Amino acid sequence: MSVRYVGKDIPRNDGFDKVTGRGVFTFDVHLPRMLHGKILRSPYAHAKVLSIDTSAAEALPGVRAVCTFENTTAKLWNGAAPMFITPLPHKPVLDQTIFTGEPKYIGDEVAGVAADTEEIAAQAVKLIRVEWQQLPAVYDPLEAVKPDAPQVQPRFANPEYNNICGGPVILTFGGDPDEAFKHCDEVVEYRVKLPRVKQAQMETHGAVASYCPDGRLDVISTTQAPYPTKMILAEALDLPVSKVTVRNPPYVGGGFGVRIGLSGKAEILAAALSMKCGRPVKLIYTREEDFTCSDSRHGGYLECRLGARKDGAFVALDTRAWLNTGAYATFGTDLVGVCGACGTAGAYVIPNFRYTGWPVYTNQMTAGAMRGFGSPQGNAVVEPAIELMAQRLGMDSIELRKKNSTREDTRNWFPFPPGSCGTNECLDRAAAAIQWNEKHGRAAQQTGPVRRGVGISAGTHVSNAAPFCVDYNTVLLRIERDGTLFVNSAIPEIGPGSTTACLQVASDLIGVPFQNAVMKFGDTDAAAFDIGSHATRTLYTVSYVMADAAKELRRDIFTWVGRHLDLDPGSLELDDGIITSGGKPVSTLAEMASAAHLEGKQFMASSCKVPPNCLPFYAQAAEVEVDLETGMVKVLKVAAAHDVGRAVNPRLCKGQIEGGVLQGVGYAVREEMTYVEGKGFYNKGFHSYMLPTADDRPEIESILVENPDPSGVFGIIGIGECGVNPTLAAIGNAVEDATGVRFHEFPLTPGRVLAGLKAAGKV
Amino acid sequence: MSVRYVGKDIPRNDGFDKVTGRGVFTFDVHLPRMLHGKILRSPYAHAKVLSIDTSAAEALPGVRAVCTFENTTAKLWNGAAPMFITPLPHKPVLDQTIFTGEPKYIGDEVAGVAADTEEIAAQAVKLIRVEWQQLPAVYDPLEAVKPDAPQVQPRFANPEYNNICGGPVILTFGGDPDEAFKHCDEVVEYRVKLPRVKQAQMETHGAVASYCPDGRLDVISTTQAPYPTKMILAEALDLPVSKVTVRNPPYVGGGFGVRIGLSGKAEILAAALSMKCGRPVKLIYTREEDFTCSDSRHGGYLECRLGARKDGAFVALDTRAWLNTGAYATFGTDLVGVCGACGTAGAYVIPNFRYTGWPVYTNQMTAGAMRGFGSPQGNAVVEPAIELMAQRLGMDSIELRKKNSTREDTRNWFPFPPGSCGTNECLDRAAAAIQWNEKHGRAAQQTGPVRRGVGISAGTHVSNAAPFCVDYNTVLLRIERDGTLFVNSAIPEIGPGSTTACLQVASDLIGVPFQNAVMKFGDTDAAAFDIGSHATRTLYTVSYVMADAAKELRRDIFTWVGRHLDLDPGSLELDDGIITSGGKPVSTLAEMASAAHLEGKQFMASSCKVPPNCLPFYAQAAEVEVDLETGMVKVLKVAAAHDVGRAVNPRLCKGQIEGGVLQGVGYAVREEMTYVEGKGFYNKGFHSYMLPTADDRPEIESILVENPDPSGVFGIIGIGECGVNPTLAAIGNAVEDATGVRFHEFPLTPGRVLAGLKAAGKV
Repeated sequence: MSVRYVGKDIPRNDGFDKVTGRGVFTFDVHLPRMLHGKILRSPYAHAKVLSIDTSAAEALPGVRAVCTFENTTAKLWNGAAPMFITPLPHKPVLDQTIFTGEPKYIGDEVAGVAADTEEIAAQAVKLIRVEWQQLPAVYDPLEAVKPDAPQVQPRFANPEYNNICGGPVILTFGGDPDEAFKHCDEVVEYRVKLPRVKQAQMETHGAVASYCPDGRLDVISTTQAPYPTKMILAEALDLPVSKVTVRNPPYVGGGFGVRIGLSGKAEILAAALSMKCGRPVKLIYTREEDFTCSDSRHGGYLECRLGARKDGAFVALDTRAWLNTGAYATFGTDLVGVCGACGTAGAYVIPNFRYTGWPVYTNQMTAGAMRGFGSPQGNAVVEPAIELMAQRLGMDSIELRKKNSTREDTRNWFPFPPGSCGTNECLDRAAAAIQWNEKHGRAAQQTGPVRRGVGISAGTHVSNAAPFCVDYNTVLLRIERDGTLFVNSAIPEIGPGSTTACLQVASDLIGVPFQNAVMKFGDTDAAAFDIGSHATRTLYTVSYVMADAAKELRRDIFTWVGRHLDLDPGSLELDDGIITSGGKPVSTLAEMASAAHLEGKQFMASSCKVPPNCLPFYAQAAEVEVDLETGMVKVLKVAAAHDVGRAVNPRLCKGQIEGGVLQGVGYAVREEMTYVEGKGFYNKGFHSYMLPTADDRPEIESILVENPDPSGVFGIIGIGECGVNPTLAAIGNAVEDATGVRFHEFPLTPGRVLAGLKAAGKV
Repeated sequence: MSVRYVGKDIPRNDGFDKVTGRGVFTFDVHLPRMLHGKILRSPYAHAKVLSIDTSAAEALPGVRAVCTFENTTAKLWNGAAPMFITPLPHKPVLDQTIFTGEPKYIGDEVAGVAADTEEIAAQAVKLIRVEWQQLPAVYDPLEAVKPDAPQVQPRFANPEYNNICGGPVILTFGGDPDEAFKHCDEVVEYRVKLPRVKQAQMETHGAVASYCPDGRLDVISTTQAPYPTKMILAEALDLPVSKVTVRNPPYVGGGFGVRIGLSGKAEILAAALSMKCGRPVKLIYTREEDFTCSDSRHGGYLECRLGARKDGAFVALDTRAWLNTGAYATFGTDLVGVCGACGTAGAYVIPNFRYTGWPVYTNQMTAGAMRGFGSPQGNAVVEPAIELMAQRLGMDSIELRKKNSTREDTRNWFPFPPGSCGTNECLDRAAAAIQWNEKHGRAAQQTGPVRRGVGISAGTHVSNAAPFCVDYNTVLLRIERDGTLFVNSAIPEIGPGSTTACLQVASDLIGVPFQNAVMKFGDTDAAAFDIGSHATRTLYTVSYVMADAAKELRRDIFTWVGRHLDLDPGSLELDDGIITSGGKPVSTLAEMASAAHLEGKQFMASSCKVPPNCLPFYAQAAEVEVDLETGMVKVLKVAAAHDVGRAVNPRLCKGQIEGGVLQGVGYAVREEMTYVEGKGFYNKGFHSYMLPTADDRPEIESILVENPDPSGVFGIIGIGECGVNPTLAAIGNAVEDATGVRFHEFPLTPGRVLAGLKAAGKV
């Protein structure tokens, strides 16, 4: 088996479709007799609908269905995939309905209309008359946990933990931190308040649902997890799983976690409307709906204590997090767990560890999965503490990190070995790229209004969701009559180029030329179960299952070819479409596939497996410029060194890192969902939500550290989410390096920085 | 394994979609940026294009592509599936191109236009200026075979056989008929001229082709054989097979053989236009195009000699057929073979057999596959001869047939055993239903202008195309999380209710409730190779492959359940979703599928196999009324007794028989494509093509004879095409019984009958 395609910068398969505009996205889908849906959303953060009158809406010509919480199933569900697929340590929190008569945030779905045009549907929504009774609301997690705070989800009232969804998540390993702290030489503390930020993916949520009154439901949507979406739809709508189809059309304009399972709600809203009228219904979220009525990253409060010995060895870490999960649980409980497990625990050897996370209900839009899934938050509290510890110990913080970094033999909270541990190489290479030795700790030598500093942060995440939830893939491989390869998997292509990289792996695993290999993806009809594209898992896990199927496929080919050519199957090899026996070419796969076809035989194989998991380690170093007069933080450079195991397609791999870093830059210095009481989030689109623009883009140096992981096919480690995880902390550390001020609230907007500098007496 | 669903009249799965109009057919498909195609067709039966000027068409606003024979690949192909899938005894005849500069029939494709609307495309077609040179043409097969006849396909000129496509098909078995005839007690001869008739399926040919300049071609079409269509497209257009997708949308409004492979040309015409402009192109044939530019049944001339001993034992049969295959070969050579093998040889024991068939090129629209595929033609010449022989021997013709009918141990031309041989039971039951003994041979006792008579005909066909061409199916089975069944096969649903019947079989084979079982069909992306819906094979062959996959699926389920519940897998049984061990219920499939899912396991299995073949025997008896004054033949009743092995869904099975019989009635007394020299076929739609209407519909008594076939799952035998095969001969025999006149040309229209009666001195 030669490695011909893995490692090459092959242009993306979806490139042509996307640059020419011919690729079909959900927005482009048109079905015969299709209607358009619009949603009536609550104008209040917490209210009760005393009465609802849809008669005027129903009477409007062109209106075909009006659904409300009164005429639509009120079966409880949870939009997060884990609901039906996870053996959770916590009982799944079923707290959502399709429509609600007791809205819990500004934007909550109360009713919906399907009509001949979008305009008629929008007009009909305005004709729905609602009598509201406002109820007390709470917005801040620290307020919400107080015993006398209003109950966001009275159904889950718990006298012990007010507004905690599913109860606190407590992770421990090693010894007792409280006891251990007593024996530390140094103990530092750090607390931080993090903003709520949005995925801001290119394509808003959308779905076209087509229900047939005989019980079938077909959904075309922007989901990044077709199978979980299908399963939750079936459960919530009481349909047999086999009768629900979910597929991408086939392209999806980004995901970043916002549409796993039903966390993008467009599917079930469109389905409810379609079930009401028996016609296909298309529901495309406006950008405002997408910003204000779909899951975001969890904001909230975190604090930690870190204890170490004089020599720098970490002794104990105790972290607490109160994350704002908003009105519904979705991924709330899972995410606070990952925040602790990956964000605070994963990257270092910590003998005495405790993490307590509270997913707190508030009357705000739900927070759910977003790239990093808790890791950025955990990183943001621990990495500054390490910086503080280095200062306290008088050590270089990189040396301190390297001394404590997770090693191949470390066993902490994770029930699997960490795999390839490239943290130290990442630290060294990021430091070198940012000229750490020349630039770090130069605050005192700088004068003038503009100061520079460098900071660093290391961390880890996961390469898969297993074994924390049900997590497996199915892959079907077949060789066509002309020897070309067809791969079938329900995994979606949400943008990273996964289907290109997967085919590079498949081509090498099987031994066929890449250029004619094709992958069918994102369709639950065409393939068996696949948990979807999330958890940094796509390439790592699909490759794992493909490797198994490829082995079977090659056995199938060699058995048949051996018989057909009267050769020992054990002597056969297949490389780039050429079949050899004992090293001598004997035929081509094209010839043999054609001959087999004439005998009624197609070479095919499948595999359905639970893939493993491993930790992707990384370090990012940032250089910033802080204007003491304006408070403006400009990120000059981020050197992002990631242990990717093996870069299947270096260009795509760097693309993942760069995209993540830029999201991290926004998280650190620009992006913030600002809540205005009585009005909801101020940020309703790209004009008011400060995504980094080309102007804000630092130089990003992506450094691919290739330490093949023993669990990954060709040594692959997950990369998808990692780019964003350590960036905020690296930038925060760099700002402190530039100014001498440690900030406790992000993003570091000019106003916030200026206030901080003033409070610290620096300006 | 209980039989719960097989044998039940379960309503069709596609019923709701079809009666409510929500089912999507190719006509309904709309893709983003889709254009509409129109074709410039030859007004001459044989011509050469001296020059073609498309500049005016190209200049018309809204025109996006103009394809002609000059700018489109001229690679030769054959629209019939066998081209790329068959190890034919004859070399495949590659005689078609997408467009041609030397059109060979009125309607032949010369150029095509894709434009923003159908109207613009039609207008642009009119703007194409062509300078034609007319060439000599020939229309009748007996004329065309003469040495001095014009050459329809000069490329295949053969001095020995003029205008014979692929050479004559000669079938023999047993001894030498010429010698055997010398020793017969009686020898009879019969000759017949049969009309060209059309499938007249509900939905005209149509395709939406979408080519992406990176090499992918997606086609949604009316094909009844998605995989062969995909393969021929790939070959003809020089694309990798893996990059071509063909699927139904999912419904197809009938097939009757008219769209196997590329015999429906819409796909390749739309593809050529799409390749020219890189946008999706929709091409829907008008009814006129469908009638005059797509394959029909072969008309032509047949003659036979039948020799027997005094006791009625058949001794020798020698048949010759000249069938009009039109301008291109498509299925020409295969069909004349089936005409001999099934139509003349299959139903009886014939010790000395010869059949010679000539597929003759003429300058008419191509004839190809149509329900029965040669069997009706063969039946139409042999069954009257048997009637004549009975008269000559003074025997009852039913007794004569029964004495000679094929038995389980008969081995004739077919390389497989005949299977269950229900001919005699069919003859007896059809005879009883038509009151043969009371009504037959009563011509002499009738007076007045209206005479009645009864006739009978027996025959056989096939249940599959194997082993005569590459012929196999692939089936993928999976159990969803809730225990419901999902079946994936590329077989299409062209109308007979195949997907309902297949799921009845699957439900019983696996042991799951039918109501939540789902079948995905007609999509080459979703499933591996399947030869398609034709050759009376769908239910018979898919069931065969499903049985294999079901065995594997049950093994998969029992292995896992046995381990999970600590039970001996060998003790487990699954019936209607309930799992028992040693007869006692231990769980449900729903519970176990859900538990397996939580462990990362989905129950699934696949099979890819060449199914067997068997002969479906039948007999039909007809009663007619002949008006001696008008020549009008009214078919009063057809009693159709078919050995179906096992009726999976008796209502659907009878539906197949009834539809076939009515097509046979049209063939016998109404339908005829009438060629007008210089103008082409007169019949351009339903106003001029005399399909039987409700008024012409006789009483049809479908008699299901159930002799389980040893090769068929649950004893199934194919039924799809059989209904039409013997009807014409039964009616012809009945007309002779009523009038004493034996006709030699069909259909028996009033004019033809009156002329015949006059010539015979009967009126």
